[in-house]
This record gives sequence, C-alpha cells and structure tokens, in this order.
Amino acid sequence: INSKLPKVKTTIFTTVGKMAKKYDAINLSQGFPNFDPDPKLLDLVSKAMHEGHNQYAHMAGLPKLREVIAAKIAALHHRAYDPETEITVTVGATEAIFTAITAFVTKGDEVIVIKPAYDCYEPAIEVNGGIAIYVQLNAEFKVDWSVFREKLTPKTKMVIINTPHNPSGTILSKTDMLELQQSLADTNIIVVSDEVYEHIVFDGHTHESASRFDDLASRSFVCSSFGKTFHVTGWKVGYCAAPSELMHEFRKTHQFNVFSVDHPVQHALATYLAEPQHYLGLNEFYQEKRDYFLKALKGSRFTIVPSQGTYFQLLGYAHITDERDVDFAKRLIVEHQLACIPISVFNVADLDNKVLRFCFAKTRDTLEKATEILCNL
Amino acid sequence: INSKLPKVKTTIFTTVGKMAKKYDAINLSQGFPNFDPDPKLLDLVSKAMHEGHNQYAHMAGLPKLREVIAAKIAALHHRAYDPETEITVTVGATEAIFTAITAFVTKGDEVIVIKPAYDCYEPAIEVNGGIAIYVQLNAEFKVDWSVFREKLTPKTKMVIINTPHNPSGTILSKTDMLELQQSLADTNIIVVSDEVYEHIVFDGHTHESASRFDDLASRSFVCSSFGKTFHVTGWKVGYCAAPSELMHEFRKTHQFNVFSVDHPVQHALATYLAEPQHYLGLNEFYQEKRDYFLKALKGSRFTIVPSQGTYFQLLGYAHITDERDVDFAKRLIVEHQLACIPISVFNVADLDNKVLRFCFAKTRDTLEKATEILCNL
Ligand SMILES: CSCCC(=O)C(=O)O
Ligand SMILES: CSCCC(=O)C(=O)O
Repeated sequence: INSKLPKVKTTIFTTVGKMAKKYDAINLSQGFPNFDPDPKLLDLVSKAMHEGHNQYAHMAGLPKLREVIAAKIAALHHRAYDPETEITVTVGATEAIFTAITAFVTKGDEVIVIKPAYDCYEPAIEVNGGIAIYVQLNAEFKVDWSVFREKLTPKTKMVIINTPHNPSGTILSKTDMLELQQSLADTNIIVVSDEVYEHIVFDGHTHESASRFDDLASRSFVCSSFGKTFHVTGWKVGYCAAPSELMHEFRKTHQFNVFSVDHPVQHALATYLAEPQHYLGLNEFYQEKRDYFLKALKGSRFTIVPSQGTYFQLLGYAHITDERDVDFAKRLIVEHQLACIPISVFNVADLDNKVLRFCFAKTRDTLEKATEILCNL
Repeated sequence: INSKLPKVKTTIFTTVGKMAKKYDAINLSQGFPNFDPDPKLLDLVSKAMHEGHNQYAHMAGLPKLREVIAAKIAALHHRAYDPETEITVTVGATEAIFTAITAFVTKGDEVIVIKPAYDCYEPAIEVNGGIAIYVQLNAEFKVDWSVFREKLTPKTKMVIINTPHNPSGTILSKTDMLELQQSLADTNIIVVSDEVYEHIVFDGHTHESASRFDDLASRSFVCSSFGKTFHVTGWKVGYCAAPSELMHEFRKTHQFNVFSVDHPVQHALATYLAEPQHYLGLNEFYQEKRDYFLKALKGSRFTIVPSQGTYFQLLGYAHITDERDVDFAKRLIVEHQLACIPISVFNVADLDNKVLRFCFAKTRDTLEKATEILCNL
C-alpha cells in the first residue's frame, strides 16, 4: 500500500486518551468538558426528533439555523453574511477546515501553518498534495509578522490561523489581524480562520474574528464549533462563513464529502442559538475555571502565563525537570495519574519548549484533584 | 478562483427538491422516507444524551457499536472483521466513500465507475486528481463484464460498485460478484462497495455483499448506512468495513476529515442494532411498498421492470412521450405536481434511456396520490 499520508500516526488525543484510561488518570489532555450540557438543549433535540425532523437536512444546513448564525455574526462582528450563499453548517469545525482545504489546495500549493498547531491542518494539506510551510511562534507564542511575510511566495495558496490559539491559549490582537491583512494585500491568498474558541476569551479581551476586517473577511473561511460553545463536543456540529464565491466552491466538496449534517440537532441549535445569553456567558464561565486552576497552582513550581482564551492553560516545567515534554507527560500519567498534552508534537520539528498543555474545561472537583498533584511536583 | 471541480453543479437532489417545494409537488425524487422512525430508537438517543454521552466519541466509532456491526456482518455474510481495526463508524456512507477515495486516489489514478451512478463518486475522484473511467450498464442495467475488463489498465487504482443499485434498482448477482473478483485477480485494485441498501432486497434474493467473497473482501471497503436502514437519513451515520491495512489508511483521513461521529446516536444504535428484527424485517416492509406501487400502476402506459432492491423503481415512458427525461421530469413537477429523478444525469454523457426514477419509500397515502397522477399520463 502506497500511503498518501506516510507521516500520519494516530492523533495524540487518541494515544494519550488510551493511556489515561489504562492508568486511571485524571484526564486534562483532550479538549472536552467533563460536565453536562444544558438539559434544555437536550430536550430541544428530543423534541425535534419526535416532531419528525429525521430525514436529510438541507445540504448547506437548516435555513433557520443559518439565519441565526448570520444574525449572531452580524451582532458580534458587524459583518453581514448572506445565510443562503455564505454560511454552511458542517460536521464540526474539523469538517469545515478539511473541506475548505480540499476545495482549494492542489498539488504543489503552499499553505502557511502557524506552529504549534492543532494537528488536523497538516494532513488535510498533504492529502491534497499541498505543502505545509511553517511559521514558528516566538517564545511568548506570538507571531513575528516579518518572519510570516518571508514565507509568502507566489505558490502560497492559503494561510491557516487559529484564534484563540490551541494549544497556547494566546489570542491574535487587532494589531496582529491588521498585520495579517496588510501582509496579504494584493494577493489571492485564502485564509482559513479556526475560531472554535471564539466565545472563550478572558480578562475583557475582544475576540478579533477574521470577519471583523474587510480585507480579511473577503478572503476568509471563518470556522466555528457548537461543540465547544455548548459543551457538546461529541455532537459534531459547527459552521463556517465565507464570501459567496469562496463558499460556492466549498459546497461542491462539502456536498459530496458528507452531504449534510444531523437534522434534529440543527433544529435544536436554531432555537437555542437564538438566545445570546446561551453563549455570551461563556467567557465568564470559563474564566472562573481558569482563575480557580491558576489560584490553586500558586506555590507550585510551574511557570505560568495566564491563558487568554480556549480551554487550555500552558504550564512551563523547566524548574522541575529537564525531561523532554513527551517523556514528562508520559511519566505524569504513569506515576501521578494525571494526563495532559506535550505540545512539542504540534511544533516545528518537535521543538521542545518544556511546556505542557492542561485542559481546564472540567468540574471543580477534577481541577482540585489535578492541581493537588501538580503542586506536589 | 481556480475551481478544483469546474464541472460540479448543485446536486440534482437539491435542485429537484427546491422545484418540488415551489410547485407543491408530491416528492418521489430524493431517496428518503416520508414517515417516522421507530420511537424506541428516538428514545434511546434521548436517553444517551441525558446519560451524558455528549463529548467526543472514539475516533473510529463507539467500540460497542463497532462490535455489534461486526457481529451483524459475521451473521449475515460469514466474514469476521475485527471491530478494533477493521470497522469505522462514519458520517453516513457518503463520508465513508469520500474518505476511502481520498485516502487512496492521487493525481492520474483511474477509478472505474459503473454508470448510471449516484452522483457523489465522481467529484470525490476528481477533487483528488483522479480520473473517472466509466462502464455503462446495458439496457437491462446489467454489467457487461467483458466491457468492464477492457477498462482495466495499469493505472486503475480503484473500482466503485453499488449493490443494490441506485438508481436502477438492480442487484449484482453472485455470478456478477465472481466475475468482478475474477477480473481483479492479480491486481492491487481497491474496491469501494456502496451497499447502503443492503437490507432492502426483494423477491427472496440474497444481498451479495463484497464481504461474502474472500478475494473481494480482502481489497474492499464495504460501506453501509444506518440512515437508510432505520428511516433516519438525516442523522448521517453509517459505517465501513475493510481489512486492517486498508482501514489503517482510511482512518488517517477520517480522523482529520471529521474526527468522529455523533456520540449519543452511536450509543442508541449500539443497543438498537443488537436486535436483528430491527433490520431483518426491512426487505418485507419495502417489498410491500414496491408491490403496492407496481400494482397501482397496472393499466398505466409506463414500461415496468420490477425493482430488485433499494428505495427506487424505474419507469420507462417511451410510449408516453419522446421528450428528454430531464424535460419530462420538469414538466411532471410543473404541470402534474409530481417530482422524480431523470436518470440521464447519472449516465455517461447524459445518455437518455427514457426512464425516470421514483422513490417508493413513502406512506401509502403518498404512493396512492402519486400513482393516480402517473396512471393518467
Ligand atoms: C478532536 S480531538 C481534540 C480536541 C481539541 O480541540 C484539543 O484537545 O486540542
Ligand atoms: C444525499 S441525497 C440522495 C439520497 C439518495 O440516495 C438518492 O436519492 O439517490
């Protein structure tokens, strides 16, 4: 067998998840909440099923849901997307990202990926014959835009950004977005903006969506996730928004990749998303968790720069051990029954920053137990 | 914008569906039931959600569901797939087919497609740089295996078959499957076997799954759909089975295309699928519908060869009009408020057999109204 993806192994999330189970470890590795979603949302799904919405939904998504998504984006980011032609409901943000890449990237195309990067971008580029070109974030996990600009070539087809950023928990500022916009002026480069943590931003910061900037929005797929926003990562529903000419191409692939998305869930979301309090409170909800996590780690030997968004907090461990992050993470599972993600696996050439990623989208009880372990290291 | 799929238009199902709505037509076009699934199945989904199965499912599918799928295949087709490494739960059969093609087809590869063909195969091949090579079914919608063999070249990477066959309603016989197996002997050609209507076969015929034949099973992705089997096409859950070396490559793409599939639905299906009466009665259930449809058309001017499987019945109209099937289908919607699918859109070079495809997965009442219209033509 001639593999199209010779480098791809099982994703780190499956590997660490398995180990966590084996050692009965507290699992702060994969990004998912360990608490329940709003029962109102579950009841809406049950209702939609019992009302008979069980056959194919519209290929691009339930029209009513697309309208509510458009209204949300208009309210938050002052950008008017046409729900008919510019918004598509997807099988999570992952399908949105894979489909956007597949619809445009072809043999020899270069795609800029900012590292460390969530692990789904690169295989999607490579399975389409594209070449991932890396820009490594600096020690503070910020983009050096002059380095970024040096990587642009006539072959650059696409740039993938991610804000709030997984795994670092940093966010792109307005200045960053303007730098990006400026860097791409006079090119046809497409942007895929992974904004799945858009509603999880802390300390009063604003989420600077690509949709807020005219000359970025006009070239961007803005991808988001209901799984992250409504504590239902296992439902696999997300969406993306893009100008109609880009979305037209996207849908050609989407309709033959998955055709459409779960119908009863879309009905439920159309009702649930229409009430902004269901997502506007999320910043505060998760900031409380981050704050608890950080407070409980006071006195530990970790180096801490507070996360600005996402489910994740990085902890620097250089004062504790000089083990490679992969080895330390393994030992934490085996010897201390605590699982996290070593971020070197998302870096250029497995660069080891000596930091680990911890998911704090967990109950108070879980965070208490985890921080107790961490404080004793 | 340089389209990777310049030929692709909106799928016929969306186009005809829209027109049917506009003219308030009885809709026998797209293949979906217009009746409700078993309330027991809906309750199982509600239960799974309320029991807290709302976060990411296993990337390859809920282990318990994969085990039940393996047991079903073993019972029906005497083939033992390892649920751990050889079965993957997918976002409908569509994602299974798209992912299998994407995992293997690369620039310049030839993929044999038997025409008329369901419309998702060709774009999946082309978006990967492959070339679809057509084998046109004969006037009885049977494969001429000598024609098939002539199309095999050293560049042939894959063959896509579909039994029971959409849109013709024919099935591949044991002889057909042996011909296929024989034709591929001593090659590395991969088979994608679209068997979404596996449980909808009439008149006592056996569904000859690719998994029943040693030397086909060893090279095949066998794809199926819970949507078709449990009257929930809008839930988008299916699966595929393949030998571990093939499945290993498949999962590399699957995990970065959609990552995983709806978790509560998989829980419900694991319980529901474990009771064979939930699918073994399907043949009879749909045969009753086909029989009613055909009986009600006695005395009409259509030429009828009874469907052997699927949701679909072809009707020949050469005695009624010499319009092209696309024109006649349009006129049926506009003037007679009845929607169906003109199959020329699935043929090589839009070959017009003067037959229309009607979906009989409908309530008695709908079929009664539809056949009344058809009898008056
Ligand atoms: C699809 S598994 C990964 C979930 C996630 O976003 C993460 O842990 O980074
Ligand atoms: C995904 S829409 C098509 C449903 C179907 O199988 C058909 O109508 O042929």
